[in-house]
Amino acid sequence: MTGVGRLGWLTRRLVSRSQYYLPEFKRVIAGYPVLQKPKAENWGSKKHKAKRTVQLQTTLLAMDPGVEKQLAPYRARCKEQGDLVRQLKADGAPEIDIKREVQELKNRKKELEDMTLKLSPPDTFDRAKMNDLIKRRFFYDNSFAIYGGITGQYDYGPMGCDLVDNMLAEWQKHFVIQERMLKVNCSILTPETVLKASGHVDKFADYMVKDVKTGECFRLDHLIKQHFEKKLADKKTTEEEKQAIDRKLTLLDGMTMDEMDKIVKEYDMKSPLTGNDLTDAVEFNLMFPISIGPSGTLKGFLRPETAQGIFVNFKRLLEYNQGKLPFACAQIGNAYRNEISPRSGLLRVREFTMAEIEHFCDPDDKSHPKFSQVADTEMTLYSACAQMDGEPAKKITIGEAVYGGLVANETLGYYMARIQHYLLKIGINPKKLRFRQHLSNEMAHYACDCWDAECLTSYGWIECVGCADRSAYDLSQHTKGSSVKLCVERPLKEPELVDGMVAVTDKGAIGKTFKKDAKAVQEALAALSSEEAEKMDKTLTESGEYELNGFKLTRAMIPSFKREQKKVHVEEIVPSVIEPSFGVGRVFYALLEHSFRVRENDDKRTFFSLPALVAPIKVSVLPLSSNPEFLPFTTQLADTLTELNLHVRVDDSTGSIGRRYARTDEIAIPFGVTVDFDTVNNNPHTVTLRERDNTEQVRMPIEEIPLTIRKLADGKIRWKDVTDKWPKFIAQETTK
Amino acid sequence: MTGVGRLGWLTRRLVSRSQYYLPEFKRVIAGYPVLQKPKAENWGSKKHKAKRTVQLQTTLLAMDPGVEKQLAPYRARCKEQGDLVRQLKADGAPEIDIKREVQELKNRKKELEDMTLKLSPPDTFDRAKMNDLIKRRFFYDNSFAIYGGITGQYDYGPMGCDLVDNMLAEWQKHFVIQERMLKVNCSILTPETVLKASGHVDKFADYMVKDVKTGECFRLDHLIKQHFEKKLADKKTTEEEKQAIDRKLTLLDGMTMDEMDKIVKEYDMKSPLTGNDLTDAVEFNLMFPISIGPSGTLKGFLRPETAQGIFVNFKRLLEYNQGKLPFACAQIGNAYRNEISPRSGLLRVREFTMAEIEHFCDPDDKSHPKFSQVADTEMTLYSACAQMDGEPAKKITIGEAVYGGLVANETLGYYMARIQHYLLKIGINPKKLRFRQHLSNEMAHYACDCWDAECLTSYGWIECVGCADRSAYDLSQHTKGSSVKLCVERPLKEPELVDGMVAVTDKGAIGKTFKKDAKAVQEALAALSSEEAEKMDKTLTESGEYELNGFKLTRAMIPSFKREQKKVHVEEIVPSVIEPSFGVGRVFYALLEHSFRVRENDDKRTFFSLPALVAPIKVSVLPLSSNPEFLPFTTQLADTLTELNLHVRVDDSTGSIGRRYARTDEIAIPFGVTVDFDTVNNNPHTVTLRERDNTEQVRMPIEEIPLTIRKLADGKIRWKDVTDKWPKFIAQETTK
Repeated sequence: MTGVGRLGWLTRRLVSRSQYYLPEFKRVIAGYPVLQKPKAENWGSKKHKAKRTVQLQTTLLAMDPGVEKQLAPYRARCKEQGDLVRQLKADGAPEIDIKREVQELKNRKKELEDMTLKLSPPDTFDRAKMNDLIKRRFFYDNSFAIYGGITGQYDYGPMGCDLVDNMLAEWQKHFVIQERMLKVNCSILTPETVLKASGHVDKFADYMVKDVKTGECFRLDHLIKQHFEKKLADKKTTEEEKQAIDRKLTLLDGMTMDEMDKIVKEYDMKSPLTGNDLTDAVEFNLMFPISIGPSGTLKGFLRPETAQGIFVNFKRLLEYNQGKLPFACAQIGNAYRNEISPRSGLLRVREFTMAEIEHFCDPDDKSHPKFSQVADTEMTLYSACAQMDGEPAKKITIGEAVYGGLVANETLGYYMARIQHYLLKIGINPKKLRFRQHLSNEMAHYACDCWDAECLTSYGWIECVGCADRSAYDLSQHTKGSSVKLCVERPLKEPELVDGMVAVTDKGAIGKTFKKDAKAVQEALAALSSEEAEKMDKTLTESGEYELNGFKLTRAMIPSFKREQKKVHVEEIVPSVIEPSFGVGRVFYALLEHSFRVRENDDKRTFFSLPALVAPIKVSVLPLSSNPEFLPFTTQLADTLTELNLHVRVDDSTGSIGRRYARTDEIAIPFGVTVDFDTVNNNPHTVTLRERDNTEQVRMPIEEIPLTIRKLADGKIRWKDVTDKWPKFIAQETTK
Repeated sequence: MTGVGRLGWLTRRLVSRSQYYLPEFKRVIAGYPVLQKPKAENWGSKKHKAKRTVQLQTTLLAMDPGVEKQLAPYRARCKEQGDLVRQLKADGAPEIDIKREVQELKNRKKELEDMTLKLSPPDTFDRAKMNDLIKRRFFYDNSFAIYGGITGQYDYGPMGCDLVDNMLAEWQKHFVIQERMLKVNCSILTPETVLKASGHVDKFADYMVKDVKTGECFRLDHLIKQHFEKKLADKKTTEEEKQAIDRKLTLLDGMTMDEMDKIVKEYDMKSPLTGNDLTDAVEFNLMFPISIGPSGTLKGFLRPETAQGIFVNFKRLLEYNQGKLPFACAQIGNAYRNEISPRSGLLRVREFTMAEIEHFCDPDDKSHPKFSQVADTEMTLYSACAQMDGEPAKKITIGEAVYGGLVANETLGYYMARIQHYLLKIGINPKKLRFRQHLSNEMAHYACDCWDAECLTSYGWIECVGCADRSAYDLSQHTKGSSVKLCVERPLKEPELVDGMVAVTDKGAIGKTFKKDAKAVQEALAALSSEEAEKMDKTLTESGEYELNGFKLTRAMIPSFKREQKKVHVEEIVPSVIEPSFGVGRVFYALLEHSFRVRENDDKRTFFSLPALVAPIKVSVLPLSSNPEFLPFTTQLADTLTELNLHVRVDDSTGSIGRRYARTDEIAIPFGVTVDFDTVNNNPHTVTLRERDNTEQVRMPIEEIPLTIRKLADGKIRWKDVTDKWPKFIAQETTK
């Protein structure tokens, strides 16, 4: 099916087929079991039943026994259906039957998930309260609001902008610098040919219908779902009708456009807004078309993802890396998707920032030299098996997951662990983070394994980072599309003899015609591949002429070709691509939800508990009152902090100190310095330093402040180091 | 005229009229002369003859006497024409006459400039050599080259990308953090209404004609110029014809589209590529149109600049700043212009990054609290006067320029100085930097002063940063377009009494209807402006009802209105905007030209002498040979450097050390560490550290390296501090 939007959001899902390479276990790290190499036909997470027998030392992320008892029937329903799907696959049942049962499996998984969330300890998160804070302090808001706003587009205000910038700065340190990656910044305006080759022109679409009178558009699946839900709630609907609707709803996700269109007609569905008739369903490509240049003849699109820019530059990047594999290239930039009906705030928007990495490696060696450094990382993995068995996600080290065969290879596992390190570092709640493996029918045909880092939010589990082994798909597609070979020469262990066609030349004739260029011509002929030689032979026979590197050659110069064995020292391979792909806006949103807090003693005091590393402003400087004696101290301190490249906010507005602390808490400023009468009168001059989350305060000399804050912001010391060193300052905090 | 592209590139030039505010001199810094406030009608650089009488202590940037003698006649020709223009303006001559003579003045200025460059000491810069290095080491290159490439679009490779990122990181420190600016990141997809209000829909255009058969497009002025130049070079053209052409060429820049079109027809101009006929001229809007959403009904454009995003968020930003002026807001992001014929590499492209600042301030007080900190900055200013008099640019402190009335106000001057600080810090050659003031006919009507930071490159002087006082234009336009007041309340020194309409209410009727909301209704009525009150009175009389803040009011509740005097404590003003606007790609390109070097002893060894602050990679680690004993040292050193967030390159490829130094020089790595046998054998282990520009080396302990490099990269120590501390290491460098 086409409906790209319904599968993963970040991992691109185009249906062209492509060969993929089979990974091997070549390296074993001490302490992990040596596993038998899995048989090729059993490999890949699509068919990983073979590996379920490996005993993994895992911790079940189960709930307390009482709750588990309530969940048991839901788990059983999943397992029953999962087993049925496996059986059908094993029996080679028709695809349509399997699809239907997989859909039922998904529905049962959804029931289980809903029930799990329902039975979880109550989460006090209040989205309306958070959104109020976000809007009031301009973290982000609807674009062009003074002109009525526009759906699916957001402007990031000072707070949001700094938070995203800090997240991305850390991303660059964590990935680009630490892993010594290359980096590119490529064009967003992309010619059609490029996106034709990548598959986006043909396949990057959703289905929709239009109101025949107003032209209002509706996503086809959303429309049907909405109509059916209304029908089910309607008392006039008979039990029989309800059952029929239930059956159709179950099958909806797997339907073709025609099947859905038939339902629209069968139930005589109208526009939910006007009651008008609807057009026939059409495919709607999600890319924004654009014409480049004034003549309107060069068609293009705004790129729907950043990755293609890296693929089309593969040759230059490989050369930059002196022809060697593996290497990784990163890109941060905007991408665009013309969503039919944007919704869920920042989660589905038309303009968004991605941070993508393409790691190119030998398809036959996906080991990673630094894997041992992360092997002990404990992760919450929600495997395809667990999803099919109705089991919960499991805690397991990535070393166990890779050597147990659950995760396809070391490089994929390495990136999964690094993604988790990054997310936790910027403040994602580890209890609301899991890596979910794609089910076989969610995965593009070319991918051999794919895991999404999902964050739990008030919208449910949302995909924030995709991490896929895309095999050779992308480079192969662009090789076909551009006729430029995107491959790597890999030295053979032993030179090989291969049959080939070799030109038999008339050196005299060539020398006479090309003179000083004769040598270049001879070299070009010697370098011919067998296919090229064969083509040349044919062309010379047919037309008598052939142009090679700008030299016009004739039959007289090359009277014949002969077959002979050639010694070959290298082989050409198409690298595999491992792709971690970050939806920056989604990570940003999850981070806001995970760090939103309400003070226990005052539910009007809301704030974001962001780590100092990413907090937009690192420190506030507050004079206790408007007494002019404080001014020289606040000014000089703020200037010194600024010189250390710390983002400072001076709040010298009127209002109690407690009220101003509350204001700085709202925008997540982790540390606050207050200048008071003791500052003026004491020698050395002292100030109070307050921490946002626990509101503890210490009193310390003013000249110690700048470096202390710098170190706190860089994570070089922790708040405890501060309270250990300086006396606590007790003051009642009041916003009155 | 419309042809926006022909005036400044960064400073937007739309021709809608708007009032502008007159600056005043309110603050005088000790040591600077107290100047009489210029008369309003003489103010602004458009009419700054009045200020030419101020004696400025300047240094003439004159050339040596022999050269000056050769330039004298060119200078005289300019002055003669400049005086003529002034005379015509003073006499109130018809605008068309003035336009013609201004054009002639521009031509003479161009002659003077060309001659000056010709007589300047020869510059050894070799663009082809630099471009070879840029391409070979992938600083940047044509986008989508494997698909044949695309004009006007470039991909930044690892080196270019890191260099731009480092430039922008420094920009953020220098401007956003140091000046405590706000920052936003706004949508690029922009609805038509917004750009209609800003003037871009109507005026952001060039003229063009098309080949009637192929559809090939030509910029109208380019086409005419090209045709005329060919005619002038043609021996068959008579002297009389040549004179007519000369006259027309002189007037070309000031012509309307119809006038130009007439010339095309008069000379029967054809497509220069095919000889085919040409269409009538049309205006071609340079924005990329786009339709947002699936229905195709919401028209928009890719933004042609980043500034509008800041203007439309003005209210939120003002609120964020607690309602106070002045404040500045910065934005870095992409912008798009569909150039008719992109050219000159990175200088005129379709997709580019801008870094813009909008500084909002009181129109009656453009003083800047930190101006005294920059007042002594010496700058090369090329004033409108100097341009009209054929005089060279002058070196003058910005303090003298502002208090002498040459630069409109302190805030504008402050930003000009800060722009210069920034450009010099990242490596722009001070001898190839000047600030050129816009002539009155280059300046949009709303701007009261505008200076471009121009860098001298092999393409001539190019505009890299614009710095304009845009008065109230942008906010006024969006107030009109959106009907949302974008203004600030300024406290009056003394409350004023103004006539106003006041509602006379029936409290009982209001209380009975609205109960607990009655108080809110009364407050809303008390807060009515006179205009609103008048409107309400009229509506109540006509229809008997009026809705205020969601409350339905009737005549019975407000039987009448009375006129009375109100005490007003604040006035509403529209802030002025000072706008520094950076074309990031242009600064980047100028920086590359300015830092390109060829080794004196070997003209094949080219490199970029970029400051460590912005160099893409800070340090290389090179083992002297492939001896395995070196490996633990290079690995550990590289890891330690990386932990300090230093971008490191390990070059363990074969090839002499000299050749590898040359490779690292090419990509501007400022420091290189070599591990050799002394490293292995000595205790403490020592390595050599080499500086790129002078190729000096020292020998020092390996454990001192990481912090030394970190400090060098941060500009906390200089190379001299290193050579003072550690013994020099003498080695012959050879690439053989």
